Amino acid sequence: MIGTSQSVGTGLSLSGVIGDNETMASWPDRRLLDLLQLEIPIIQAPMAGSDSVALARSVSSTGALGSLAAALLDPDGVRAAVRAVRAGLERPLNLNFFCHTMTEPGDAAREGWKALLRPHYERLGLDIETVAESRLRLPFEEAMCEVVEEIRPEVVSFHFGLPAPGLVQRLKERGLKILSSATSVAEARWLEGCGCDAVIVQGFEAGGHRAMFLETDVAAQVGLFALLPQVADAVSVPIIAAGGIADARGIVAALALGASGVQMGTAYLFCPEANVSPAYRQALREATDTGTAVTNLFSGRPARGILNHYLRETGPISESALAFPYAATMVAPLRAASEKAGSPDYMQLWAGQSARLVHAMPADQFTRKLAAEALSRLHAGYS
Amino acid sequence: MIGTSQSVGTGLSLSGVIGDNETMASWPDRRLLDLLQLEIPIIQAPMAGSDSVALARSVSSTGALGSLAAALLDPDGVRAAVRAVRAGLERPLNLNFFCHTMTEPGDAAREGWKALLRPHYERLGLDIETVAESRLRLPFEEAMCEVVEEIRPEVVSFHFGLPAPGLVQRLKERGLKILSSATSVAEARWLEGCGCDAVIVQGFEAGGHRAMFLETDVAAQVGLFALLPQVADAVSVPIIAAGGIADARGIVAALALGASGVQMGTAYLFCPEANVSPAYRQALREATDTGTAVTNLFSGRPARGILNHYLRETGPISESALAFPYAATMVAPLRAASEKAGSPDYMQLWAGQSARLVHAMPADQFTRKLAAEALSRLHAGYS
Repeated sequence: MIGTSQSVGTGLSLSGVIGDNETMASWPDRRLLDLLQLEIPIIQAPMAGSDSVALARSVSSTGALGSLAAALLDPDGVRAAVRAVRAGLERPLNLNFFCHTMTEPGDAAREGWKALLRPHYERLGLDIETVAESRLRLPFEEAMCEVVEEIRPEVVSFHFGLPAPGLVQRLKERGLKILSSATSVAEARWLEGCGCDAVIVQGFEAGGHRAMFLETDVAAQVGLFALLPQVADAVSVPIIAAGGIADARGIVAALALGASGVQMGTAYLFCPEANVSPAYRQALREATDTGTAVTNLFSGRPARGILNHYLRETGPISESALAFPYAATMVAPLRAASEKAGSPDYMQLWAGQSARLVHAMPADQFTRKLAAEALSRLHAGYS
Repeated sequence: MIGTSQSVGTGLSLSGVIGDNETMASWPDRRLLDLLQLEIPIIQAPMAGSDSVALARSVSSTGALGSLAAALLDPDGVRAAVRAVRAGLERPLNLNFFCHTMTEPGDAAREGWKALLRPHYERLGLDIETVAESRLRLPFEEAMCEVVEEIRPEVVSFHFGLPAPGLVQRLKERGLKILSSATSVAEARWLEGCGCDAVIVQGFEAGGHRAMFLETDVAAQVGLFALLPQVADAVSVPIIAAGGIADARGIVAALALGASGVQMGTAYLFCPEANVSPAYRQALREATDTGTAVTNLFSGRPARGILNHYLRETGPISESALAFPYAATMVAPLRAASEKAGSPDYMQLWAGQSARLVHAMPADQFTRKLAAEALSRLHAGYS
């Protein structure tokens, strides 16, 4: 674990930005900093398939919190990734897991999904009858819990609720801090009641999978501006704002609405350390404010991504989409063909609504810049 | 017109809240205040059917901007309402108009709409073959322009774009300030290019009609948190944040994201001066963060309201909805029957996503409280 003596003194120097007498103690709300032993209240969002060891290392090195999504990794993959992040770096790390329930879809559902996808296969000259099995996103279970108890990441975050109470309890007994995301006041209260040390408040603007686990109606999902203060009024644990935050203005606004910190995903996709293909990078650079939508056409669960041919032609929400995570298998060949051709038509281009605000630079530099600018705005005041 | 000498000195006293040496000049961004001759950068949103002379008077009396929606009024109605607001009060007033295009739907479209509504009529024991004509929302045109030139409200705001360039020009030549709402960067740029003096940035959280006039895809509409800074970066005129703002935290956050002021609607519906029925008031008091959705089932255009039986059963978005504003006529009997029965089932319950944040009090008192709390938060700083 990271001791206070190690994390203080190696921090970001803001001399010249906010004056020599200011230190990292100048963040107005220290609840999240103290809870997670951070110096900067920014969490790099875990992004299965797009985050990387280099990205998490770079972010954690600044005193902010780097994250690794483990949903697509097996136990050895998790061990190796965490070892690589920690080589020569004593900083907190967040390991992220999905905790959905796997319910094998029946034949009728599979046929419905196939019928919807068939024209797309034909358009790309692919055969829908010969789809190979692909790696499915797996939920956090007993075996992985043992790995996590062995590795002891400082922070464990979950998506789609929480795993069985016994597993959460085991992690908490080891001193690990537990986070999960809420898309409503009801979900935030539930997570607090189940022992989360802090709650990530995911606004409708967020890229990637909606955390929804009690909520079922995508049309009623809430914007960050409205959701943050309502959750702040409803729970006692620190809250972390997520969705549409991509610059220092967003950090300052999130704090004003009651957050103790922020989680940023899309912004970090622009960093060279992110595992993002050239075609994905180009789509991100060209994304506009109205260029994304929430779709269930890739995994079966609602997630925000850049509108492309597939989403525009089909939905973006379809009742024929197979249940999560099974829908992904039959979409994989479309994605692969699209990626190979350098075309965005069937690519899974997760992104939030603020891609336009981002300027690409290395993750550590970007994190320090965000912190310095936010502190400068906070301390400049409005007089 | 209101002179500076009249609007200064009668303002809100914040003594004891932010210290005796602070004055209204302490708002960090004076662009909107100076443009519209205000002392408080808050606009009470025009709300056709729910705003009132008493509400606009009460808000304008504080140095904020009261608004009257004129979409359901004829010229004499507009004259009478403005006279009533101005009796003994020399403060700026905003008159609001819709500027849509009226395209009479054909018989097939009418039959489709009737088919969708028939089960609802049957449920309420009403006869769909004997629907009376109802007053339609009319766009701003030549005749109303003459009335506005005669009345000279200090501010004229439009929804759904702008009227013909010649009409806008005539109002500007009279010295009236022109506002309109944007739901995207593209719409904001268009409005600035057409001569708007300030642009209202309408987040997806907002209650009532989406201002969409270039945008057509509801699924791609943008949350306020993401939209504000992107519009701030794209236009030079002052911007006004709207959607999900219901307390001082929201005002401070909007300013941090680049707004020069805010427009609030739902929050003012809780004031006793608002023209809101007891059943509507109760629905507002009970509204939760996830209790609203954008629907086209009342007017034919997307608008956010509280989810009720009608929306849950039918949509909330249907391709069968008749074009705006014609859809409203055939919904009117359902709404009336529901209202009469004190049931929310078919009521048009426009509301944004932050109703839960509001505490009901008289509009002038509420406005002063918002201003004092926002100034206090801004000047307390974060040190």
